[in-house]
Amino acid sequence: MNVSPQTTVAQKAFPPSLPGLLVDDAVRGALLEDFGRAGDLTTNATLPEEVTARAVLSSREAGTICGMEFARKAFTLVNPWVVFTPMVKDGARVKPGDRIAVIEGNARALLSAERVALNFLMHLSGISTYTAKFADLIAHTNARVCDTRKTIPGMRGFAKYAVKCGGGINHRFGLDDAILIKDNHIAVAGGVAKAILAARAYAGILVKIEVEVDGLEQFDEALSVNADVILLDNMGPELLEKAVKINAGRAKLEASGNISLDTIKAIAETGVDYISTSKITMAAPTLDIGLDIELK
Amino acid sequence: MNVSPQTTVAQKAFPPSLPGLLVDDAVRGALLEDFGRAGDLTTNATLPEEVTARAVLSSREAGTICGMEFARKAFTLVNPWVVFTPMVKDGARVKPGDRIAVIEGNARALLSAERVALNFLMHLSGISTYTAKFADLIAHTNARVCDTRKTIPGMRGFAKYAVKCGGGINHRFGLDDAILIKDNHIAVAGGVAKAILAARAYAGILVKIEVEVDGLEQFDEALSVNADVILLDNMGPELLEKAVKINAGRAKLEASGNISLDTIKAIAETGVDYISTSKITMAAPTLDIGLDIELK
Amino acid sequence: MNVSPQTTVAQKAFPPSLPGLLVDDAVRGALLEDFGRAGDLTTNATLPEEVTARAVLSSREAGTICGMEFARKAFTLVNPWVVFTPMVKDGARVKPGDRIAVIEGNARALLSAERVALNFLMHLSGISTYTAKFADLIAHTNARVCDTRKTIPGMRGFAKYAVKCGGGINHRFGLDDAILIKDNHIAVAGGVAKAILAARAYAGILVKIEVEVDGLEQFDEALSVNADVILLDNMGPELLEKAVKINAGRAKLEASGNISLDTIKAIAETGVDYISTSKITMAAPTLDIGLDIELK
Amino acid sequence: MNVSPQTTVAQKAFPPSLPGLLVDDAVRGALLEDFGRAGDLTTNATLPEEVTARAVLSSREAGTICGMEFARKAFTLVNPWVVFTPMVKDGARVKPGDRIAVIEGNARALLSAERVALNFLMHLSGISTYTAKFADLIAHTNARVCDTRKTIPGMRGFAKYAVKCGGGINHRFGLDDAILIKDNHIAVAGGVAKAILAARAYAGILVKIEVEVDGLEQFDEALSVNADVILLDNMGPELLEKAVKINAGRAKLEASGNISLDTIKAIAETGVDYISTSKITMAAPTLDIGLDIELK
Amino acid sequence: MNVSPQTTVAQKAFPPSLPGLLVDDAVRGALLEDFGRAGDLTTNATLPEEVTARAVLSSREAGTICGMEFARKAFTLVNPWVVFTPMVKDGARVKPGDRIAVIEGNARALLSAERVALNFLMHLSGISTYTAKFADLIAHTNARVCDTRKTIPGMRGFAKYAVKCGGGINHRFGLDDAILIKDNHIAVAGGVAKAILAARAYAGILVKIEVEVDGLEQFDEALSVNADVILLDNMGPELLEKAVKINAGRAKLEASGNISLDTIKAIAETGVDYISTSKITMAAPTLDIGLDIELK
Amino acid sequence: MNVSPQTTVAQKAFPPSLPGLLVDDAVRGALLEDFGRAGDLTTNATLPEEVTARAVLSSREAGTICGMEFARKAFTLVNPWVVFTPMVKDGARVKPGDRIAVIEGNARALLSAERVALNFLMHLSGISTYTAKFADLIAHTNARVCDTRKTIPGMRGFAKYAVKCGGGINHRFGLDDAILIKDNHIAVAGGVAKAILAARAYAGILVKIEVEVDGLEQFDEALSVNADVILLDNMGPELLEKAVKINAGRAKLEASGNISLDTIKAIAETGVDYISTSKITMAAPTLDIGLDIELK
Repeated sequence: MNVSPQTTVAQKAFPPSLPGLLVDDAVRGALLEDFGRAGDLTTNATLPEEVTARAVLSSREAGTICGMEFARKAFTLVNPWVVFTPMVKDGARVKPGDRIAVIEGNARALLSAERVALNFLMHLSGISTYTAKFADLIAHTNARVCDTRKTIPGMRGFAKYAVKCGGGINHRFGLDDAILIKDNHIAVAGGVAKAILAARAYAGILVKIEVEVDGLEQFDEALSVNADVILLDNMGPELLEKAVKINAGRAKLEASGNISLDTIKAIAETGVDYISTSKITMAAPTLDIGLDIELK
Repeated sequence: MNVSPQTTVAQKAFPPSLPGLLVDDAVRGALLEDFGRAGDLTTNATLPEEVTARAVLSSREAGTICGMEFARKAFTLVNPWVVFTPMVKDGARVKPGDRIAVIEGNARALLSAERVALNFLMHLSGISTYTAKFADLIAHTNARVCDTRKTIPGMRGFAKYAVKCGGGINHRFGLDDAILIKDNHIAVAGGVAKAILAARAYAGILVKIEVEVDGLEQFDEALSVNADVILLDNMGPELLEKAVKINAGRAKLEASGNISLDTIKAIAETGVDYISTSKITMAAPTLDIGLDIELK
Repeated sequence: MNVSPQTTVAQKAFPPSLPGLLVDDAVRGALLEDFGRAGDLTTNATLPEEVTARAVLSSREAGTICGMEFARKAFTLVNPWVVFTPMVKDGARVKPGDRIAVIEGNARALLSAERVALNFLMHLSGISTYTAKFADLIAHTNARVCDTRKTIPGMRGFAKYAVKCGGGINHRFGLDDAILIKDNHIAVAGGVAKAILAARAYAGILVKIEVEVDGLEQFDEALSVNADVILLDNMGPELLEKAVKINAGRAKLEASGNISLDTIKAIAETGVDYISTSKITMAAPTLDIGLDIELK
Repeated sequence: MNVSPQTTVAQKAFPPSLPGLLVDDAVRGALLEDFGRAGDLTTNATLPEEVTARAVLSSREAGTICGMEFARKAFTLVNPWVVFTPMVKDGARVKPGDRIAVIEGNARALLSAERVALNFLMHLSGISTYTAKFADLIAHTNARVCDTRKTIPGMRGFAKYAVKCGGGINHRFGLDDAILIKDNHIAVAGGVAKAILAARAYAGILVKIEVEVDGLEQFDEALSVNADVILLDNMGPELLEKAVKINAGRAKLEASGNISLDTIKAIAETGVDYISTSKITMAAPTLDIGLDIELK
Repeated sequence: MNVSPQTTVAQKAFPPSLPGLLVDDAVRGALLEDFGRAGDLTTNATLPEEVTARAVLSSREAGTICGMEFARKAFTLVNPWVVFTPMVKDGARVKPGDRIAVIEGNARALLSAERVALNFLMHLSGISTYTAKFADLIAHTNARVCDTRKTIPGMRGFAKYAVKCGGGINHRFGLDDAILIKDNHIAVAGGVAKAILAARAYAGILVKIEVEVDGLEQFDEALSVNADVILLDNMGPELLEKAVKINAGRAKLEASGNISLDTIKAIAETGVDYISTSKITMAAPTLDIGLDIELK
Repeated sequence: MNVSPQTTVAQKAFPPSLPGLLVDDAVRGALLEDFGRAGDLTTNATLPEEVTARAVLSSREAGTICGMEFARKAFTLVNPWVVFTPMVKDGARVKPGDRIAVIEGNARALLSAERVALNFLMHLSGISTYTAKFADLIAHTNARVCDTRKTIPGMRGFAKYAVKCGGGINHRFGLDDAILIKDNHIAVAGGVAKAILAARAYAGILVKIEVEVDGLEQFDEALSVNADVILLDNMGPELLEKAVKINAGRAKLEASGNISLDTIKAIAETGVDYISTSKITMAAPTLDIGLDIELK
């Protein structure tokens, strides 16, 4: 059988998926945070219990949606009889005004769950949207934009899911699922190769090893002991190009440092495989999404 | 006794304070999120257990620091013998290069806790810094920049603490500690006054009531039943000024909608008391803070 | 628009409402506490799995019911097929013998959940009933009986909900949702006015400020800086009346200290707005409610 | 070796003890409940961070103290440098004015932890005190006052500890640590003896079996199959005395129903072993304990 | 009424039962442990979301099944629409190849939950099966095989449930539900009788007391103060037989130490009541159960 | 720089390390499980509070120790003043009678924590010891024994740590940290290569991909798309040797199925890299470790 991995990769990936149990726990926590010890005073004081309503979630700007299941959970955890009808799936590109869901049911539930639903949806869609902007700029190359461990505490898994929804690719999820050797590790271990070998001796059989190098000398050393991925930090396009050439497809190459919407194209065109930036998870503006309620 | 509240207010406030138990829980959670099921593979694979080190946290840009206690907890929860010496307090303004803390102890602990410490510090300092930018622009007025319930899930109390560290003032913390009546509540209740009266009848004795009005007619109605605070959404400076005049000091006035670094000055100069924006909690770029480690 | 707040308040309040998620967590915890590591030995040992039954909850004495949702949850968390039919709503006044719910389903579930259901129902109804006794005695005045932070740990939100069901009004829910300045705060701050101003400078925009005063001098000082509520502790009816007169409707006035079923009427008739007592949450006898099971 | 169990029993029991981990969790939970999302606004707004103070806990009435460790935890969890010096141990009888502890340290910590410390101390001491009143009345007999599973949710273990501190004895802690067969179990099982035998067949080897009987016929049946304990519900002294005589020391006998300070003496004098009442855990008035703070 | 307890006991016991809430919590925890921060990468990457499947759980070897409800929960917590049809109940003896359940629904859910379902099922069935082997060898005697507190942390209640499913009987569940006095307790208390009396004075009314004795002298002492159960540790059949004779049915007797499939028969035939071994919970090989999936 | 990875790997690995926070949580949970609602009745009833003691942990048989930190935590969580002095480190080989720790302090704490400490230590040392037996048999080859996801729920991370302490190597920790494609995935994906490519497209950049093949045809296909690891299930030594030859060092090879102390040597000598078996985590007998207490 003859398959060309490179082409297939770009086309085949299933849409990202997240365990429902994780979403459930997160939304539960967020509702309890918002409800405090007494719940929604305003709504309970002004709306009779039996009023029903219809709400429409729509995007006020162009972007990439992420977090539909969080929104659904927010409404249905407050009131299981609420009917949440999604109009789009996570990862969908929307235009200003596009409807993303219709929600019908008890009006108190709609108003009480609104903020939590929107906080997840706007934050995660913000990440997806910002990631997509980076991804679009390098779509003509083989490079992929990828995330880091710089995420807001408690949001690691969800932020990385949003990065995928935006067309990015995930770096490791924590300290335990892959090895990334940095300058301090190298210094104590006594060099790049020694650090990599120590890591290989320690790690489990399905753990990849990446190493951050500060120049071509360390780069060569990393290649000599078969690092899986090599991180080239703060190198200009020329140096990156040189590394790509030396590498000749052996290790995967990741570029990082000063990545912006202005610089990413040139970096991607050097032939590196991944371009990582904390901006997509730590500095993405929220996507403006609104909820319009029609009381019955 | 004769005291002028207005002047005193601006000078007297103690620095914000946060319960240590909350910080402890949050940092614990973040460490577990990062450690996963096996901890820091890289550090444990490459550093001997007994190496010690000295680390310096310093800001790479100008800003307002927030989250020192989160950073201290991150290191000391990983290893209680680590000594964390803060150089500044939360709320301090720093210049690029300013040291904010020195940390000494087991090198593995320093490397393993680094990211969690920085994730809190950079995110919260980002909020403080961005808030301070807004606050500085209106320091010559009596207006204060204030937050909303648009916060990243799990971060509500901490984000609001950061807003205070940046010189902002907090709006309600959740659905249960104050009443904010919006258009849908008014619609069902049958008008602004009826909604306020229903709220007053329902609420506890120390619960303030705010109402969002869509124009001067509703504004008058809100004043007629003594709303504590009135939210003027999406009104231009002229309309705001008119409301300030009509109000004549009776209710507190909050302006919101389209608040930006460009528009806030004009809005503050209308004489409103508070100017709220979700930008400070949902769209603040992180403050760039670095950790430099010196291994011994 | 002309509305008289005073009259409306007494009539309009919606029945109190509690977030279902909070009830769910509390009942879950109580069931786990009762089940321990092995569940209901007695029932599992003596009843075949398939027996069904019908149970009737009825009050053995006159009182005010609170906790119906806790009871429903207890039975349905043990067995989701149990059908719980409430006969009354929280806040309902019952006579001895009145049925409050009928429950049908698996007999094991009915017997295993019985105690937890009753523990919530009897304790919370006890609070409601005792509160109602106080409230009834002052119904001819504008005063309202109110609770304190003296509640059994873990029961804060539920005890305060029960107070509302009994016709009382809630004081603050915790240390964070309102400010109550007491003697020690005043002593350190350097006086009533200084303390209030410091509090106002620190607090968020929707935080009310109450101050406890020890006599008329402090009372005047509190009024001079516009305290929202003034707590008059351990003052006799005459002094209270004097304070009411001086106040002339400016601040809300709360009386506390030595409140009992014997003294509350006289205190209410002085014209104070609130009368607080820890007795309703810390010393309310349970309401005797029984569960009669009819096995099929 | 010849020892007389009966006499020894009354004298030898060690003071009750509670796992520190349980106290820690409970106090942590109570502090978080009181702190909410922002902590003690009042104290943080009015007291400088560095003020220290000395506080004295003293009883305002005669009673039996319970909960010293809960109080200590409350203060030290808020600030580990606070020094808590107990003057009495749990179970101690105090007179009005007796000091029970002196606490020194950061003034903010003292004020912020005060309510939680007192809520535990006053509630648990209330249970101990009320239990002791019952116990004192029957001290001349061999009977012991005992508790039930009627406890406030979340407080089971602590309430039962307080009962022991007051001189009472504990009934089972939950559904899983002993068997108590009641009317419904008997009805389905087909009689007292059959129910007991079914229970014995199901239960573990260290599980005692108690059965509730409605008269002397069932009582005989229970004895015939060696019930460990027999519960005589709502029987008058005469019937109880008759049962004691028939029993002739075989099973332990527990009386319940309509137990009050007025009736317990007569019941105890019938010769029953235990007298159980839910009043001690569900209707004990709090013991009035005060905290006086002396700021430095 | 005349019933012979001894015979009835062996026949009457209802099948063991476990609270659903405990199973729910445990399975939830196990799924989260397996899903980590990103869920089932493999399945989500290779199976389209809409594929459905049919899976059959069957035993690959002879044994006693335990854990059906854990398996059901694993599949339905991942996807509530999965239909789980059990073929056997816990406690059932199966032959190699016997089907134990059929599961139909979303294929991703089936594959993602498989391991957690099997981990519970294989481990618990392993305990049941191993217990049954011991139980079968002594079925002709009145002795019962029983467990200990030597269980894998977090599995106490479930391991003991499995022991019951295998025909064993449970010893105490923890330190708090019964008293077991060992050598060190005896040494400090000043003798067997003194220790038992101290325990009786301390313990609640439904707490049984067992004591471990090192020979016949201590055995006599234990009998003299009516120990409920006496543990004879590491005694040979002859000594055990002597103890049974001396005891003459007064206390229950438990033998322990060096219990194996080779020794248990002789020990049981001495007439002791219980034979305890940690092997059944700490050294039971898993039962081999397989899941065969038929994709549609 | 010229380093031979192969040799270095075997010698260099640092000893395994586990985050203290995870151990802390697990031991806390186990103590609460054992303490239940009332703690150690026996010890509290028979030992005065002030008695101190010295305890020695020693191995009763030859084995490999794992779990020292769990033991230390158990004692110090019950009483922080207990001094725990380890004699060996995790991974140490011990002979019968070897001391592994000395513990001094409050006697109640020593007795109350004993079982939890031993349950962890005996279970984890059992895994280490059993793993070491497998590892010793193949020490002359380049193969390593490795674990699976077949672990007791709640013990995943700890069981895998124990495997490392015994000289084994870890397979993936959960569904989220690596990809393992099995028959059902292959069937739906349409073949080995298609499944691998789909996985590569979906997975993050540091995620390794393993595939299980049923014969040499699938094996070739897996090699053709560069699988990182190939799992050869239930193949005899001859077939394995053939695969090793074809592979020529390209992918890592894992053998599984019917691995036992009898078969592992022959399999390892085929040249495969890893040999996985669930026996080491699911069927390891505990290591017999005893605690001898010397009361003072």
